[in-house]
Amino acid sequence: MNTKVNLLVCGQILTLDSKNTVFEDGGVAIAGDTIIEVGERAGLLSKYPGVEQLVQPHGLVMPGLVNTHTHAAMACFRGLADDLPLMTWLSEYIFPVEGNLNGEMVYQSSLLSMAEMIKSGTTSFCDMYLFAKEVARATADSGMRGWLGEVLYDFPSPNYGAPENGIAYLEELLAEYRDHPRISITVDPHAVYTCSPDLLKRLKSVAENHGVAYVIHLSETRDEVEGCLAKYGHTPVMHLDALGILDSQVVADHCVVLTEPEIALLAKRGVKVAHCPESNMKLASGVAPVVELLAAGVTVGLGTDGAASNNDVDMFGEMDSAAKLHKVHRLDPTVMSAETTLRMATLGGAMLLGAETKIGSLEAGKKADLIVLDMNKPHLTPMYNIPSHLVYAARGSDVVHSVINGRVVMQSRKLLTLNEDAVLDRMREIGAQISGLVSPGRR
Amino acid sequence: MNTKVNLLVCGQILTLDSKNTVFEDGGVAIAGDTIIEVGERAGLLSKYPGVEQLVQPHGLVMPGLVNTHTHAAMACFRGLADDLPLMTWLSEYIFPVEGNLNGEMVYQSSLLSMAEMIKSGTTSFCDMYLFAKEVARATADSGMRGWLGEVLYDFPSPNYGAPENGIAYLEELLAEYRDHPRISITVDPHAVYTCSPDLLKRLKSVAENHGVAYVIHLSETRDEVEGCLAKYGHTPVMHLDALGILDSQVVADHCVVLTEPEIALLAKRGVKVAHCPESNMKLASGVAPVVELLAAGVTVGLGTDGAASNNDVDMFGEMDSAAKLHKVHRLDPTVMSAETTLRMATLGGAMLLGAETKIGSLEAGKKADLIVLDMNKPHLTPMYNIPSHLVYAARGSDVVHSVINGRVVMQSRKLLTLNEDAVLDRMREIGAQISGLVSPGRR
Repeated sequence: MNTKVNLLVCGQILTLDSKNTVFEDGGVAIAGDTIIEVGERAGLLSKYPGVEQLVQPHGLVMPGLVNTHTHAAMACFRGLADDLPLMTWLSEYIFPVEGNLNGEMVYQSSLLSMAEMIKSGTTSFCDMYLFAKEVARATADSGMRGWLGEVLYDFPSPNYGAPENGIAYLEELLAEYRDHPRISITVDPHAVYTCSPDLLKRLKSVAENHGVAYVIHLSETRDEVEGCLAKYGHTPVMHLDALGILDSQVVADHCVVLTEPEIALLAKRGVKVAHCPESNMKLASGVAPVVELLAAGVTVGLGTDGAASNNDVDMFGEMDSAAKLHKVHRLDPTVMSAETTLRMATLGGAMLLGAETKIGSLEAGKKADLIVLDMNKPHLTPMYNIPSHLVYAARGSDVVHSVINGRVVMQSRKLLTLNEDAVLDRMREIGAQISGLVSPGRR
Repeated sequence: MNTKVNLLVCGQILTLDSKNTVFEDGGVAIAGDTIIEVGERAGLLSKYPGVEQLVQPHGLVMPGLVNTHTHAAMACFRGLADDLPLMTWLSEYIFPVEGNLNGEMVYQSSLLSMAEMIKSGTTSFCDMYLFAKEVARATADSGMRGWLGEVLYDFPSPNYGAPENGIAYLEELLAEYRDHPRISITVDPHAVYTCSPDLLKRLKSVAENHGVAYVIHLSETRDEVEGCLAKYGHTPVMHLDALGILDSQVVADHCVVLTEPEIALLAKRGVKVAHCPESNMKLASGVAPVVELLAAGVTVGLGTDGAASNNDVDMFGEMDSAAKLHKVHRLDPTVMSAETTLRMATLGGAMLLGAETKIGSLEAGKKADLIVLDMNKPHLTPMYNIPSHLVYAARGSDVVHSVINGRVVMQSRKLLTLNEDAVLDRMREIGAQISGLVSPGRR
């Protein structure tokens, strides 16, 4: 490991370590991809003289946010169709258009979403989509840290064709990225209503063989639960458990519709839950029992879902919505405090991804994934409480610098890894192409 | 009226007129404070040669947003105390600190909130607070369009002292701003639980004498309704009706807790409702029956409430929350469409304020209150549907220019009416002062 400090990021430091340490005038000393030391700025400056500094007046330095569930490439569908019943939206818009996607469109759309993620403070994400090799290529190019997988199901894929080709494609991905410093591959069965018990179990074996996360949409809607009950005699959670799949390797996306015994079972099995409040709100799926999940000891991360159902991937907005939604849902203003919500979006996400020793807080030995916010703004002045401002008032656009794996990927809101104008220009072309794919009456 | 066009604002024009006219490459021709013409850019350029232009590449020009309920000066309390039961928040933090406010603090805090409002796309607001003359002075200085009033109740005020001085203070305000081009005074009884029937009725006479809006917090919480039932044998709505107050002059803030007959009565009486979803969520008050109010034909505007209970005054975020909240609350993704929500935040607000002939859409003859968004952003590209992007993806920080009453108040995100740095510096001092006012155990 390179231990020669080559970058000092200075400002007010919110470490989000176990003691909630804050350095009012502090710094983070980075060597290569790793945080070497976090402390008072003066001490670090004298200990590491002459090192390049990243400084923002009134800057707040904090861990990068972890988006635990997204479909980055769906950014190309943002606003294509809204305010529709879920099945109309899927069957008349998303599915027909998805059938015509190609790898280049997915690559470009993923880049767009990653540009948005970086510009709104996310440094790590967990992605499920088609053409995952293209998502991986975009992740490599953007400089982000990604956990990503190819979505798998029982029907033919626009990417790998016949269902039986899916696992081979996945194995190639797993082999290709085995040792990548920022990219981890996950095993991604789409859901219990699109994957047979046999496919679900075969994929569990793949995940076990490789020791990687098993990511699945689970209990997202009442329709899903009712369909699963009708088909298998079990709810989705109990169905996975009956198949012997439900364990600590499972990352369950959404978990909106759960019973109390299911919450207890998720806790007992060590299942992790990715909570996506804005998507659940916009699609009118319901309110996930996150307060109960946390009380039961379940690890919960926060996610935006794809931009087609959100319609952004801004984790600052997601934190705000999460905290407020649960308060009004339970008619209790004390639940989902700013501190709880902020932790869900940082260390909670890291724990969900099994990466709590690597990311999620600013501590010596962890990877250097951090963001700097400009707090010299009307909506952030004065400042009494940092978590309150971050959850209830800050927006993604307040993030000025981003460092991922020790690399400065954005400085003063300029992306250093991507040509933003080129990405936007290409997306306008792809948008025109997609418009042409929607049936004329629907445009 | 000055009819010599002196400013052309060019871009994609979303007029939000009754036909939802959009000019893909259009312009708004302004003379003094008034819109003279809205049309194709080329035509306007040849008709008004040599006129100063305000242009943004990939710019979207739209009516400025109307924030129908706020307490601007409460920006100085943002984040001072969150995640608390309402009465703890009010009695242990807000009330003790408010008792120590002075006019200068209110002026500065109002300026801060107006800076935030302008920078997030709001051009008009309706404010209720203490030291309303200072709020008016800040409004005059900021260049914003404001409807504002002094909050009145039965107990002594940090501003005007004994309750009996309140109406005299209000009358002075009304006289002072009778002919102001941007400032309108409203009559603001705080609520039924803080104002005696006698005060409520006396203030209604004042509002009638001056032909101005009667603005009151109404049915915000279940506690308010239960207290009113216990004290007067009526719900707050029926209490006002029994007092002969409920008519089309009334702007009712919040209206979270309503029965079906009350909704019908509000419609029959022509009462206008200011909907504040984020504040209602954060304080866990509940979900206002906005879908039902709209169906009954009630005019509903959108508001942020004060920054102490939101914690921002960004109307773009408020639109997003409003649309999503009602979808998940009713488990129906088709309610509160982007179009409905956008109209609530523009023309709906104008109607609530009785100003629909002056503001709320871009049409010849209306006042020139408009904003320009930079749509050349990852989270806004590609664009299939303008209202969808504005409600679900845009943020206040995407607003680059703002014109109010024909005056450019922000250009390229630089405030032209206010010294933003000076406002922020003074707010940090006031913040330190306020911290000192909170009891040590609470800091």
